Amino acid sequence: MPKVTVEHRTARHDQIVSAARRCAIEQGFHKTTMADVIRESGLSAGAVYGYFKSKDELVSAIADQALSSVDELFEGILASDQPLTPLAALRATLEHVVEIAEQPGGDVTRVALQAWAEAMHNDAIAGIAREKYSLLRHKFAEVARRAQADGTVDADVDPEYIAQVMFALIPGFLLQRLLLGDVTPKTFATGLTALLK
Amino acid sequence: MPKVTVEHRTARHDQIVSAARRCAIEQGFHKTTMADVIRESGLSAGAVYGYFKSKDELVSAIADQALSSVDELFEGILASDQPLTPLAALRATLEHVVEIAEQPGGDVTRVALQAWAEAMHNDAIAGIAREKYSLLRHKFAEVARRAQADGTVDADVDPEYIAQVMFALIPGFLLQRLLLGDVTPKTFATGLTALLK
Repeated sequence: MPKVTVEHRTARHDQIVSAARRCAIEQGFHKTTMADVIRESGLSAGAVYGYFKSKDELVSAIADQALSSVDELFEGILASDQPLTPLAALRATLEHVVEIAEQPGGDVTRVALQAWAEAMHNDAIAGIAREKYSLLRHKFAEVARRAQADGTVDADVDPEYIAQVMFALIPGFLLQRLLLGDVTPKTFATGLTALLK
Repeated sequence: MPKVTVEHRTARHDQIVSAARRCAIEQGFHKTTMADVIRESGLSAGAVYGYFKSKDELVSAIADQALSSVDELFEGILASDQPLTPLAALRATLEHVVEIAEQPGGDVTRVALQAWAEAMHNDAIAGIAREKYSLLRHKFAEVARRAQADGTVDADVDPEYIAQVMFALIPGFLLQRLLLGDVTPKTFATGLTALLK
């Protein structure tokens, strides 16, 4: 038997999650079966079950990916010495979201909506969502603190409250993009600028 | 046979939708069966099927209710002669949302999240969501126009773009309220005020 390397295992794992994600994007979590994922992955049933024992484990893996916070993006945003406005941080986040949504292989933001719904009745998904979204909101609180230090935002207000509002704009943008199809980072930033003035 | 009045039919219809909503709040659209709804409603299978031929019809009825725009609220808000700020309109909307969420019989906003997910794969639900949310956003555009007329918001910006941002805050608030549980209309209005200053 050849030795199975860590790289090989990681690649197989990702291959299965990608197949499951494509199924979830197309038909939703609930209608997707293990048989669908096996077919879509091009692997054997034994291989797939070797990585994921149940559909629940797969759903968690997809949700984890779909809800992933935009950590790398914020590292870049927060590392800059330039004055950082909430508007600039939000616009960069929205552009990042659209970039992710438009990647080949289907719009993963459609799966985020399913993960939100699933979190209402599935403790594992709720835990993942809470963890990812707490992290993302924490990043927005850092942006708020920076803006308060720069003097562009009232320093007397709890930055967590400011972060709640900044965070809210992301799912609100996503939902309109998917349902109504007429929002872009540009229209959103224009509307936000008018409100912030 | 007694004559079945319109009032009787409406009451029966609402009784079934309420039962279905309670099932959906507790276990989600997908796990809810017609048998669950029949049991929960206390009516006979024949009675329930007399109003809803399939689970799909019931899901549409619940989604319609859960996504209902807050028309009455906006009638009140827009009827007033007082200067109307986007902040005041948003705060009133959020307070209304929390009031609806806390009504006895379970938090209907949990069903809104399911309807969003369902809209990704169900054209009927997508149509309902688009209709309801276009209406709600239209109301926010009216608020934006009023604020532009009052001179509190830049009159050069398309009010539809401002409405996109105002609208976004509602699902963004809902999602955080259900997932993270730490937002209130007050914390949100405080954060928003700091950003708008």
